[in-house]
Parts: sequence; C-alpha cells; structure tokens
Amino acid sequence: MPAPGENLRINGTRLWDAIMEMAEIGPGIAGGNNRQTLTDADAEGRALFRRWCDEAGLSMGIDRMGTMFATRAGEDPDALPVYVGSHLDTQPTGGRYDGVLGVLGALEAVRTMNDLGIRTKHPIVVTNWTNEEGARFAPAMLASGVFAGVHTLEYAYGRTDLAGKTFGEELARIGWVGDEEVGARPMHAYYELHIEQGPILEAEGKTIGVVTHCQGLWWLEFTLTGKEAHTGSTPMAMRVNAGLAMARIMEMVQGVAMAAQPDAVGGVGQVTFSPNSRNVLPGKVVFTVDIRTVDQRKLDGMRDEIEAKAAIICDELGVGCEVERVGHFDPVTFAPELVENVRNAAEKLGYSHMNLVSGAGHDACWAARVAPATMVMCPCVDGLSPNEAEDITPEWAAAGADVLMHAVLESAEVVA
Amino acid sequence: MPAPGENLRINGTRLWDAIMEMAEIGPGIAGGNNRQTLTDADAEGRALFRRWCDEAGLSMGIDRMGTMFATRAGEDPDALPVYVGSHLDTQPTGGRYDGVLGVLGALEAVRTMNDLGIRTKHPIVVTNWTNEEGARFAPAMLASGVFAGVHTLEYAYGRTDLAGKTFGEELARIGWVGDEEVGARPMHAYYELHIEQGPILEAEGKTIGVVTHCQGLWWLEFTLTGKEAHTGSTPMAMRVNAGLAMARIMEMVQGVAMAAQPDAVGGVGQVTFSPNSRNVLPGKVVFTVDIRTVDQRKLDGMRDEIEAKAAIICDELGVGCEVERVGHFDPVTFAPELVENVRNAAEKLGYSHMNLVSGAGHDACWAARVAPATMVMCPCVDGLSPNEAEDITPEWAAAGADVLMHAVLESAEVVA
Repeated sequence: MPAPGENLRINGTRLWDAIMEMAEIGPGIAGGNNRQTLTDADAEGRALFRRWCDEAGLSMGIDRMGTMFATRAGEDPDALPVYVGSHLDTQPTGGRYDGVLGVLGALEAVRTMNDLGIRTKHPIVVTNWTNEEGARFAPAMLASGVFAGVHTLEYAYGRTDLAGKTFGEELARIGWVGDEEVGARPMHAYYELHIEQGPILEAEGKTIGVVTHCQGLWWLEFTLTGKEAHTGSTPMAMRVNAGLAMARIMEMVQGVAMAAQPDAVGGVGQVTFSPNSRNVLPGKVVFTVDIRTVDQRKLDGMRDEIEAKAAIICDELGVGCEVERVGHFDPVTFAPELVENVRNAAEKLGYSHMNLVSGAGHDACWAARVAPATMVMCPCVDGLSPNEAEDITPEWAAAGADVLMHAVLESAEVVA
Repeated sequence: MPAPGENLRINGTRLWDAIMEMAEIGPGIAGGNNRQTLTDADAEGRALFRRWCDEAGLSMGIDRMGTMFATRAGEDPDALPVYVGSHLDTQPTGGRYDGVLGVLGALEAVRTMNDLGIRTKHPIVVTNWTNEEGARFAPAMLASGVFAGVHTLEYAYGRTDLAGKTFGEELARIGWVGDEEVGARPMHAYYELHIEQGPILEAEGKTIGVVTHCQGLWWLEFTLTGKEAHTGSTPMAMRVNAGLAMARIMEMVQGVAMAAQPDAVGGVGQVTFSPNSRNVLPGKVVFTVDIRTVDQRKLDGMRDEIEAKAAIICDELGVGCEVERVGHFDPVTFAPELVENVRNAAEKLGYSHMNLVSGAGHDACWAARVAPATMVMCPCVDGLSPNEAEDITPEWAAAGADVLMHAVLESAEVVA
C-alpha cells in the first residue's frame, strides 16, 4: 500500500461531535468547561474516553499518575509505539478545545484508520496525560513531567489543592491509580495537536502551525519594599516609592524583550499593591515578570539583565528589591524529522501553514526530553485561550487532525 | 490682665490621660482604634466627651448632623465664638491621635483656662465634627462639608455604608440627631490641632507646624483597556498592553509632579490588574492618580497635562483610556492673621516651628470656606497615619495643645 494520499481525511463531523459531547461534562459558567484534574467531572470525562477507546478496539494501560495510554496494535511486535495525545483536564474557566482537541483528534485519526483498514508497523497509542493544567495541583504538565523524569512520583503525589487535598489522595478517590510505572514506556515518536492559544495563525491567515520549538521561560517574582506613606502629606523627595520602581521595571522589561527580537517576549501579568488605597503609597508591591524565548543562552541572558537592571532601578529609589525565580522551563527544539513530517502533511493536504513557536508549555515539551516529539497547531479565534469563550471552527479542528493523522502515519509506517 | 505669657501651659498629663481613656473605646486589633462614625463605639466616645464637657461647665449644642458644639461662655454677649476642635471618629484601622488630639487638645485648653480663671471676650466652642473620616459613609469631612454648604443635608443623610444603612438612620439610631440647623453658627475664627500625618516635622526636627495652606487635590481614576492575551504566545508586536501603558503613565505622573515643585505631589496608590494572572497580559487595568498642590491654577494644569499625556501614551500602544475625576478639593489658603497667631504662640512658648502645608483634607479646610481658619500640627512618628501603629509623644501633644491654646486666646481676647 502506498503512503496515504491527499484524499485520506479524518471524519470532521465525528471529531466535532466528540468534542461537543466531552464539553457536556464539567460545564463552565460561561459556555466553556470546568473539568479540573481529579474531580468527579474529570473521572466522568475519563470514563467516556475509555468507552470510546474500547469501541475503537484499543487496549488501555494506566500508569501510577493516572495517565491513559490506549494502544492500537501495530504489525511489528518489536516496533516502538508512536504516541499521540494531549489532555482532557481544563482550567476552572477553561475552554472546550484546549487539550481536548489533541486527545480526540488522536482518537479520530485512529477511528479513521479503522474505517479504512489502515495497518501500521508501529503501534499507535492515544494518550490522555493527567493534570496538564496545574490549576488545581501546581505545577502544570505534572504527569508528563514525572514521565520525563522532571519530577518524582512522590513529589507529584504530595501536591495539594486549596482545600488541602493531595494529588495522590484524589487520584485514588476517583479510581484512576494505574499499575504501570511512570515513564516505563519507550516512545518511537510523540505528536500533539493543540489549538495555538495565540493570535499568529489567525492574523497570518494560516490553517496549520508547524511547531519547531517550545519557548523556554523564566518567571521572576519581584517583591519591592517601599515606605507606606500618605499621598498628600509625603513630599516627593521623601518618598520611597515601590510603585514607581515597579513602573520602571515594567518599562525596562519591555526594552529587554524588544532588544531580544525576534522570538522573545517579556511582560507582566500579575501585580499586587499593598495596602492598595488611593491615598497611600504602597509599602509593598509584588509582581511577576514572564520572559520567554527559544534559545537557552538568550533566555538566561534576559533574566540576568532584568535582575541586574531592576536592582539598579530600586537602588536609585531606595526601594528594597527581592527576586524569586518562581518558574522555569528550558527551551525545547522539537525533533526535526517529525517537524518535517508535519510540514509535509500540511503541504500534501493543501493546508496553508507556517512555522510556529509554542509560546505556552505543553506535555509535548516534557515528552521531548525522552522521545522525538513535535506538535501541530491550528488557529483559535483572537488567540483567546484558556478561556470559556475559547473558539475554533470545525474546519480548523478537522485540518489539524488531518495533518496529525498523516504525520503519525509517516512515523508509524503504513503497512501494505 | 496682660496677654498670657510663656509660663501659661496646658496640663500635659491630663491631656494624655484623656487621650488614653478615649482610646479604650472602640479598640482596634493592633493597638489603635476602630471607632467608626455612628457606631455604638462612636456613641460611647461622644457620651464620654459630653461628660467631660459638662464637668468643664460647657454648654452643649448639637446640630442635625450630630456635630457637637461645647461652649465656654465669653464676656461680650455680642462677640462671635472662636471654634476649636476636630473629630473623634476613626478609620477602621485608625490610630489614637488622628482627630482625637484636636478635640481633646481643645478641651484641655478650656480646662486650663478654667483652672486659671482666664476669661475671654469671645466664647470658645470645643467642637467634635461628625464623620470626618468618611470610611463608613463617604465622602470624608461630611458634617463640616454640610456646615460649609458644600453638601446638602439630604445628600449627607442618604449616604450608605457597605451594609446598606444610611447616615440618617444610623445617626438617629445612636441618638445624636440635634435640633440645630447645620451651618447656622457664625464663627469668629476656627482653629484645629492635628497630628501631621506626614514625615516633615519629624525629619526637620521641628515641634510645631504652622499650617499656611491645605493642598487641593484631584483623584483621576484611569481605566485602561488592553487585550487579554497569553504572555507566552502573544508576540510583542501584537500586544495591546494595558499594563505597560499604566507603567508609562505612572512615570509620566512622577515627571509632572517633579516639574511642579515645590509644594506639589503626584502618585499612584491603587492598582487593579484583570485577570491578574502570571501568564496573562491584563485586559483591563484600573488605577488612581492622586495629585495635590496649594495653587488652584497649578493643580488644574497638572490634571490637564496628565490627562493629555496619558491619552498620547495609550494611543501609541493602542490601549483604550478612560479617565474619571473621582475626587477633588480646591486648595485652601488659611487666614493669615490666624496663621500669625499660631506662629507667634510657638515663638513665644519657645517651640521650634516651621511653615507646613496640610497634605490631607481636614474639617478646617471646609471651615475655611465660612470663617477665618487655620491649623496647628505636631509631629507623628514616621508620618504613619492613619494607622493603628500611629504614634506621637506626650511632649508633642502638649506642645501642640499649648500653641493651640495661646492662638485661641489671641483670637478670643483675654479679658482682664
């Protein structure tokens, strides 16, 4: 049998119906989803996904982190599997597509192979990673992180939610503690389809993002200590103005990011003034700088420059400056041969495409530590994600799953 | 009888004891006071003050705003009274001295006059204004504002607290609705002693602030509309960064205030990012600019410059910019002859002194609209006020009350 041609497509209606059926579980308050990890809604979503896998003839394995591996057998008993998936958990105010498209797009690819009797040398494993979001149990990408050896199982089990419940307790409570050792599965390749969660594809009018890298990031949490003082009765010369120091650091971060173009970003999303009163200068200002780029040396250079310049800014104002590095991921370069498979698939199928860097973290970024890996992206409206108002078109979803299937088949090797 | 000489002093121990006894009513949680207006604690404080006034032989009048006027008779039945006071209500986390020193310092001055048999041509009226703080029922200086014709009585009665109770209902509930028409009392002069609530006197090593002006202020509330976007997946060029616009406006406000030196301030105390998440650029940023100076034209010029430059800053970033003028007071120039009385009193008594501008609003600022008025200030530790940790020394309190008494006697005219 020759390589599948451009006439081979997934069933877009079936894919869309599956996404909508999953979205009924753990509904949000504004049209999206609240299906946080290890909740009853998560368990319900998992059960539905397992039923679909059973119906597709897949055999289910579960590891001790609760990650689900649904295998479609290959023809060669010695060939390592091709993994393809994402996650079914959502943010508290999450959308219908973030993660879900990647799992159900993989399932749809397998269903289509079943429809057409396509056989592959390598097994294909549809994967649902536990707790990608990290909203309930930080950090994000927890199960794939344990899989890749970034975290220990004990660390993961001990993570607590705001109610004080641990990950381990809650995983047991919903009945999804598997018996497989985490990370014991060698992978021939790992593919993940995901909505872009950014505005580039839509703005450029492209249907497919060929993802070459995942940005590395540093989160720097600044705690600035000024002098709490009345805005009216404190002369300018006597102020120790932590808010002004923050403003100058924000402008400086902008400058550092602009000087690091292209493929670098820097910004501030979270700010807390204390006491946060109209007529009191803040005694304390806490804010987080988020910087990301694809190159490790550039990333660390931005971090060092920001920390050094912030110290100077604060010194000039007499403001105390503490920096805690509260988050970090190394940049990831995805496997060139898999990236090429994605690009070729988009080209063959006639979908407009462009190279893209993943700005957010994904399970693929951890999987890339232990296997050749890459991602396929499709647009999302206004780049708005994760958000209950998250929106994509059925055509974008189908195009993404088409490209995913063809790239997976390239790695899995179609057998005549 | 000649004018009282430098040997005439108030009883500092009695003053301090009175302050400490008042501080037992409506204790705070951190050593200060929570004696908010029209609460049971306020009623208890009023009752104690009335008892002290009765014991000092003063006759009490109450107006329809609940303001207490305790009169020490003068010798001339046609002479208008000299008013002297401040307020007994506090912030929810207020200090022991803010307001209280002014009322009990005035009472102590009268007690001292009684001790020594000093008679005056003009009556002297010790005054406790209702709801100076405005913490429970905004705005601040409510009763003195009605007295001065700035607000109507109906407006004041209709102000509501967070529980939905109105000022009028609560004033009646605690039993302090008087029968006097508000503002019906013509004043020969008005004096108010207050802690500085700023750091200048302490930093300069001066005991007495001779208050020449009360700053005018504008509060400008900015609502900036950016585009909520992922910090990782939104390229710099595609950002509509409301946080960056805020940072630039904060720096610009600093520049406008510095260019308006001396006697001008500008700053930001309150900032709210939405959604305020580490990895999301804010879709909305709300913050309040507070500018103050003593000259009306300069004050309005600062306001116009800030509004115009903010619009340019936001335009350059594509950020939506709305400004609401949420607060305003005109600058006040205190009566030169009363200011001179204060300065002469400090000089005569040998207290170090300097001219001061009141950075905060006080009842004296409204009283100045309908009478010659001024203030006396004494230092407070670190300029920390209002705050439960608010602190002054008994010596500062006594010095302030000494100067207050001598200035009041100058206006009230000692009779031989």
